[in-house]
Amino acid sequence: MNTPTVPLVDPQVLDRIRGWRGYAEAKLGFRNHWYPTLNSSEVAEGQPVPFQLGGEKLLINRIDGKLYCIKDQCLHRGVPLSRKLECYSKDTISCWYHGWTYQWADGKLCDILTDPSSKMIGTRSLKTYPAQELKGLVFVFLGDIEPTPLARDLPPGFDEADRRVQPFRRVVNANWRIGAENGFDTTHIFIHKDSRLIRGNQTMLPLGFAPNPNSKEPLFETRHTEGGNIGVFDLLAERGVPHFEGSVHGEVVRRAIHGGDKHIAGQISLWMPGVLKVDPFPDPAMIHFEWYVPRDADSHWYIHCATKVVEGPNADAEFAEEYEALWKDLYAHGFNDDDIWAREATQPFYQDDWGWLKEQLFEADACIMAWRKLASEHNRGIQTAGR
Amino acid sequence: MNTPTVPLVDPQVLDRIRGWRGYAEAKLGFRNHWYPTLNSSEVAEGQPVPFQLGGEKLLINRIDGKLYCIKDQCLHRGVPLSRKLECYSKDTISCWYHGWTYQWADGKLCDILTDPSSKMIGTRSLKTYPAQELKGLVFVFLGDIEPTPLARDLPPGFDEADRRVQPFRRVVNANWRIGAENGFDTTHIFIHKDSRLIRGNQTMLPLGFAPNPNSKEPLFETRHTEGGNIGVFDLLAERGVPHFEGSVHGEVVRRAIHGGDKHIAGQISLWMPGVLKVDPFPDPAMIHFEWYVPRDADSHWYIHCATKVVEGPNADAEFAEEYEALWKDLYAHGFNDDDIWAREATQPFYQDDWGWLKEQLFEADACIMAWRKLASEHNRGIQTAGR
Amino acid sequence: MNTPTVPLVDPQVLDRIRGWRGYAEAKLGFRNHWYPTLNSSEVAEGQPVPFQLGGEKLLINRIDGKLYCIKDQCLHRGVPLSRKLECYSKDTISCWYHGWTYQWADGKLCDILTDPSSKMIGTRSLKTYPAQELKGLVFVFLGDIEPTPLARDLPPGFDEADRRVQPFRRVVNANWRIGAENGFDTTHIFIHKDSRLIRGNQTMLPLGFAPNPNSKEPLFETRHTEGGNIGVFDLLAERGVPHFEGSVHGEVVRRAIHGGDKHIAGQISLWMPGVLKVDPFPDPAMIHFEWYVPRDADSHWYIHCATKVVEGPNADAEFAEEYEALWKDLYAHGFNDDDIWAREATQPFYQDDWGWLKEQLFEADACIMAWRKLASEHNRGIQTAGR
Repeated sequence: MNTPTVPLVDPQVLDRIRGWRGYAEAKLGFRNHWYPTLNSSEVAEGQPVPFQLGGEKLLINRIDGKLYCIKDQCLHRGVPLSRKLECYSKDTISCWYHGWTYQWADGKLCDILTDPSSKMIGTRSLKTYPAQELKGLVFVFLGDIEPTPLARDLPPGFDEADRRVQPFRRVVNANWRIGAENGFDTTHIFIHKDSRLIRGNQTMLPLGFAPNPNSKEPLFETRHTEGGNIGVFDLLAERGVPHFEGSVHGEVVRRAIHGGDKHIAGQISLWMPGVLKVDPFPDPAMIHFEWYVPRDADSHWYIHCATKVVEGPNADAEFAEEYEALWKDLYAHGFNDDDIWAREATQPFYQDDWGWLKEQLFEADACIMAWRKLASEHNRGIQTAGR
Repeated sequence: MNTPTVPLVDPQVLDRIRGWRGYAEAKLGFRNHWYPTLNSSEVAEGQPVPFQLGGEKLLINRIDGKLYCIKDQCLHRGVPLSRKLECYSKDTISCWYHGWTYQWADGKLCDILTDPSSKMIGTRSLKTYPAQELKGLVFVFLGDIEPTPLARDLPPGFDEADRRVQPFRRVVNANWRIGAENGFDTTHIFIHKDSRLIRGNQTMLPLGFAPNPNSKEPLFETRHTEGGNIGVFDLLAERGVPHFEGSVHGEVVRRAIHGGDKHIAGQISLWMPGVLKVDPFPDPAMIHFEWYVPRDADSHWYIHCATKVVEGPNADAEFAEEYEALWKDLYAHGFNDDDIWAREATQPFYQDDWGWLKEQLFEADACIMAWRKLASEHNRGIQTAGR
Repeated sequence: MNTPTVPLVDPQVLDRIRGWRGYAEAKLGFRNHWYPTLNSSEVAEGQPVPFQLGGEKLLINRIDGKLYCIKDQCLHRGVPLSRKLECYSKDTISCWYHGWTYQWADGKLCDILTDPSSKMIGTRSLKTYPAQELKGLVFVFLGDIEPTPLARDLPPGFDEADRRVQPFRRVVNANWRIGAENGFDTTHIFIHKDSRLIRGNQTMLPLGFAPNPNSKEPLFETRHTEGGNIGVFDLLAERGVPHFEGSVHGEVVRRAIHGGDKHIAGQISLWMPGVLKVDPFPDPAMIHFEWYVPRDADSHWYIHCATKVVEGPNADAEFAEEYEALWKDLYAHGFNDDDIWAREATQPFYQDDWGWLKEQLFEADACIMAWRKLASEHNRGIQTAGR
């Protein structure tokens, strides 16, 4: 299908971008990458669930425990199959409109209930996407090539044995890149200066950081995971000077809250195709991961993962209890709710793409630029949702 | 008035359409054709009613029993006259803003209440459209040429003496062509397989039809009415093989409901400028007609007409009673309500025009293609709403 | 920042405009002019208030009694400062996101709370706009040049000593030019023919005016104020023939209401950058002024000012009482509410800019054309909101 020349991104903006054009183009995310979507528990046997990813309408189902994901759009007239689900056999779904019937496994048009003699049968296939489960999350490979190993799109440590994961998914009305840059940006901790988490968990957070004037060391570093993924570390917190006092005209006007001595957020890194690791967080014994999953051009799924290594037979249940009792309110809400409104307040400036040119970044944003370049060089394709 | 080059339909789509470009262009319907609009009973003497047709705002009035239709937009500043109706003489309407006064009969600017000396008076005219009543429906000739006889835009039999008509108008949020193709498409009966009408009226409906493999006969046929209109008949039901069982992987997974032996929907035909005839329907003694009237690019009036030949002095009242008591619920709602959501579920795929290229039609759609070609060749113009 | 070629106004329309292109371009108003905004009483010491002007988001504050207006958009990431106000010193405002801190007086980036060592500090400035108070209104100079004296953008008499002003601000969902032309247009009095004000204040209003057939005198005249502003007077009321009877087909169909003998609205003039003077109105002892302040392309602030010369120590309080007790209901609502719906009913025709070409003006609109030409020639720039 030819693409209309009506572009997804303003071409005048793209022409002015130097060094990270691919990222500027990726308004709907990247093609040929794994993205987390629903929770495993949300996809029950034989009960298809519709959702949106990279601007596409998808439908996922569980058959004999295994997951299958297809495009939620009949080949014939383009209607969403999910408008009225009709599954007449375990391994197929039929369109409510003319009975075009597709196999979940390969998308093949295997029957047409209104015309069993149609020559279309067996010669057409609906787009399918590989799906896989890990740590209670359903990952979908939004692509056309032979799927890469899931590990290549994971942040380091996420798939570690005995690491328990509590995912919490929210829709944020901002482009996924606004989400990623909000999370990775070290100095955005300024918006968390009054977060309940700080006192509530006896932690301590500076107001910001300044690069070390006596050092020429870069403030970021690109690394690979064992799984083969690539990401960038923000080293400002490590190599810079933390500030616990904010001054205006040389007078201290604001001090950081000292909730206690717990050291958190020592290492912050952002990985392809858009997942943040904060280690440790929100507690010395925990690691925080968050994905920014493109739903459409103007919204993303903020998939917030509290994780902890817990052993023993009841480890999952134990951590689930601890999360519900303590962390969900204190940090998922008490800390990260501020990031949600911050992203939504940033979106209008970037919505027409011109914000990428009008913004004025400062020293602490070095890691943001590093991320944009990395993402432009190391993605496996730009998602365009068939446009 | 020059047309802006901002086109109503994506030119890149039009360039790719072969054989039925005119239909692809007719997003707002056709120019110089008769369309049904309001019910006669809705237009009372001296009480103008505003409505929308082909993307234009119109205003219709009844004077001494006769109907007059004008554009609902003052020539001066383009305001809708209907925003505040001011009629100071039986045969005129005055604009609430500056008192520009137009004659219903010819649209002529006959007076300006704020400046009786204006040179504009008598030299300008508001656009008028011929209007005519038939069988309780108000027809408007949306055009600029000498109006053709109404019969040229009617389906055969509609104007038959003693044929009683019960019109039922609904707004459907889909382009009028989505409506027409939904109604004409034989195999869409699949969505009606559980309709209350089937058991409720002891009828029987197959799940679908297959072309007869041993026949080379075309599955459609173009015909003319005595009145001079042209339409296409879907012969799939006649020449094809009805299927009462639907199979997946060779196993029967769904059987059609046998409500009884009543034979319905034997002949289905679609006529210019967009009106369907189903004969007989929903009962052997009745004929169903439905018009798809363009309101704007994204919605149409679904004018549903139950008809029956009834003689005698109280024929109209008798059929009205029968319709209210039985048919309105059982078929207008119990059958055609499904078509409404089906059309609205189809609309998004075609909304940006690219659906016309992305769709994948099958054998049973032969009549749809025939209709598109016929409509492209035999329309009297494309409606563009002055753009 | 380069401007995208996506134009604010349809270039095909601009190419067809003869003699007043600048006005057709001024969809967001004019640059380098003074506009009234909030009431003085709405801007309290140290309590910034956000508002919109010419498509820009602005923020205004009062410091030691003086007003300061800045762009409500952080230089760094373009977020609105007003989303979460953080002022750590009397003369600065800090962005809630990364602590970028600006001086109200000159917009200079004087500190960054998250990185006091940033080289950006002192080298960047947020856009500021001069603000000034007069007669209880806050005026903002929406421009980039050395501000002109406020008097150059005032209608004559507004700043007269002892003239008391009662401002009343409403949002109208129509472009500011639709507002200005509605107010200036003499014959629009037709919509006021039933206004409560006429009987309520024993005044008398004709239905309209006709140019004097025996006179060749122009129906408008351009004049300057002592302050240096320029405006156009509509002389139709003065030189034309008032009509108290409206006729259709030579028969009187409507008579003007004679509420009494009070003569009002003798002189009507429209001044840059878009402010109307009606003298006297609504009472022989009063003068009415109204500004049409562009908020964005599709709405304006209708700032309605009842004024009267009253002397003595309690003059302001006395007039305020008189206004609340009598005028606010009888004329602000009882007369001008009709102008609000008239403007909103006119907006759709002009929204895509083509209305400027499709309209058909008549003799009484001579002053409207004069205004358009004057505004095109004498503006100090076109507001484009950085696009």
